[in-house]
Amino acid sequence: MPTASGHTEAIRATKVIGTDVYNPGGDKIGKIEDVVLDKTSNNIMFAVVGFGGFLGMNEKYHPLPWSSLDYQKGRDGYVVGYSKDQLKAGPAEGIDELTKNDGEALRDKVYDYYNAPRYWQ
Amino acid sequence: MPTASGHTEAIRATKVIGTDVYNPGGDKIGKIEDVVLDKTSNNIMFAVVGFGGFLGMNEKYHPLPWSSLDYQKGRDGYVVGYSKDQLKAGPAEGIDELTKNDGEALRDKVYDYYNAPRYWQ
Repeated sequence: MPTASGHTEAIRATKVIGTDVYNPGGDKIGKIEDVVLDKTSNNIMFAVVGFGGFLGMNEKYHPLPWSSLDYQKGRDGYVVGYSKDQLKAGPAEGIDELTKNDGEALRDKVYDYYNAPRYWQ
Repeated sequence: MPTASGHTEAIRATKVIGTDVYNPGGDKIGKIEDVVLDKTSNNIMFAVVGFGGFLGMNEKYHPLPWSSLDYQKGRDGYVVGYSKDQLKAGPAEGIDELTKNDGEALRDKVYDYYNAPRYWQ
């Protein structure tokens, strides 16, 4: 679980956006389309991943817990430890729906679905 | 100080970027050029503000504590409670310097300079 320790790993949002996303097997599954910020708590809520044509879902955006992304230098991309089937069945929304009602319901749904550690209490 | 409570206020990074920034007097002082994310701790480290020609500093980017930005709907922009002189004398860097050495030294410098609450321990 990420903790607010002294160590940092700074990255600009405009560098994150557009980065490829892979599964552990090395298949490219999409790219980062945006990042959803949680203004109130100063936290990063989601990485927004678009799967393009690869999984056959063109119109929907997949919010993933930011902490689930592991940057791998050799691949110049992020790796997420989820299977295609898991991602396919995961929460997906239109771009404006991602921040609807301040994202609270979607946040809970996504973190529960991926069984990701919560950054809030 | 922002706390990791249940309440959220979700906003997409691509919507934040390009938003105007004002001082409390209502003067436009610049706009958000980027957001620096702290991958390790899941936090938002800086809003990167460009002052353009207004303060006469074209080449430098001003990292501000994200928590110092207050979105005001009526103005369709962020208000920061710092004076022009404070901002002028504040830390400013080239865009690639913002994330140098994972941003740790700059983070400490900026939060100290603006006397902003630390999100880390």
